[in-house]
Amino acid sequence: MYEGPLQDLIDALGSLPGIGPKSAQRIAFWLLEQNEGEVNHIADTIRNTRSKVHFCTVCFNVSEHELCRVCMSLTRDRSKICVVEESKDVVAIERTHEFRGLYHVLGGAISPIDGRGPDALHVRELVQRLGDGAVTEIILATNPTISGDATASYLMRLLSTFPDVKLTRLASGLPVGGDLEYADEVTLGRAFAGRTSL
Amino acid sequence: MYEGPLQDLIDALGSLPGIGPKSAQRIAFWLLEQNEGEVNHIADTIRNTRSKVHFCTVCFNVSEHELCRVCMSLTRDRSKICVVEESKDVVAIERTHEFRGLYHVLGGAISPIDGRGPDALHVRELVQRLGDGAVTEIILATNPTISGDATASYLMRLLSTFPDVKLTRLASGLPVGGDLEYADEVTLGRAFAGRTSL
Repeated sequence: MYEGPLQDLIDALGSLPGIGPKSAQRIAFWLLEQNEGEVNHIADTIRNTRSKVHFCTVCFNVSEHELCRVCMSLTRDRSKICVVEESKDVVAIERTHEFRGLYHVLGGAISPIDGRGPDALHVRELVQRLGDGAVTEIILATNPTISGDATASYLMRLLSTFPDVKLTRLASGLPVGGDLEYADEVTLGRAFAGRTSL
Repeated sequence: MYEGPLQDLIDALGSLPGIGPKSAQRIAFWLLEQNEGEVNHIADTIRNTRSKVHFCTVCFNVSEHELCRVCMSLTRDRSKICVVEESKDVVAIERTHEFRGLYHVLGGAISPIDGRGPDALHVRELVQRLGDGAVTEIILATNPTISGDATASYLMRLLSTFPDVKLTRLASGLPVGGDLEYADEVTLGRAFAGRTSL
């Protein structure tokens, strides 16, 4: 549509996830209007982040250093590990301020349809973390989806060889502020199954 | 939320128009998963486009060279100039294949509320293009908005000093495939005012 370099920019922006051709065009024209320093800052940030971002060698959360902030902290409860699929999930849980233990980021979920089995996840490293007997509870906080549930089931079977470690799963049920009428039947069914006594 | 460089990347992406914090996070993680060549290509394209993209010295459309493709073309009708606000509008009109004349990109519209008067637009250059008498029609194709209509009115008064140049404005009315019931009253009013005999 556009001449050479502008179309290249639109194509490059359009390759990002969630950016369609119209958004890409809008961002491209916006970039042309910005001053050079601003544009170069964005370009350099994209270029350099990859080499600066590491993964925590213990829990595989994204990290600036060898160990992430949570693993380095002296105030966290080292007897609990919350197992999540992605680093994004760590941020979501941290935002609740409900959990003061450690994390373990699997790097995805088991998904046979995508050819991703347990070997593609950081499962072995999780088992190694249980070696010294310091951990007493593992919270399986994978997503309440087919692949997340499958991953949780797999881990439950695998970790049942550690009798001293309590295994828990995040509650599934109605979202707060949600409407019973609009809840899907699976969620409503889980809310019933997991009902708590008052 | 995230540690150092990753948060910088999310912030940089979030500064782009139409990208919210959630999209920025999604794109940032996506970029971390891509191979380095791909990421560097995107970064370099953003960095370099600015210096490679020029504006046509005649019509101010975005261009790779001194003159844009339309102005360089030998097959275009040089007696007609279509006046638009932005380069994006040129692309939209080219897509219709209805117009074979030349363009003039104003670089915006008159908008007193933003402190943008006619001097901020390429109006003087448009008047200069009429100097040699080759142009017989000017199509005012600014947007059918308050500022676009104001710009068209201003140009109409200004260009009425060229009696040999016919001034036209794009028709306003119901969009094709649209529903009479859902048309706003201004659009429907314009559709009535501009009705054509069969």
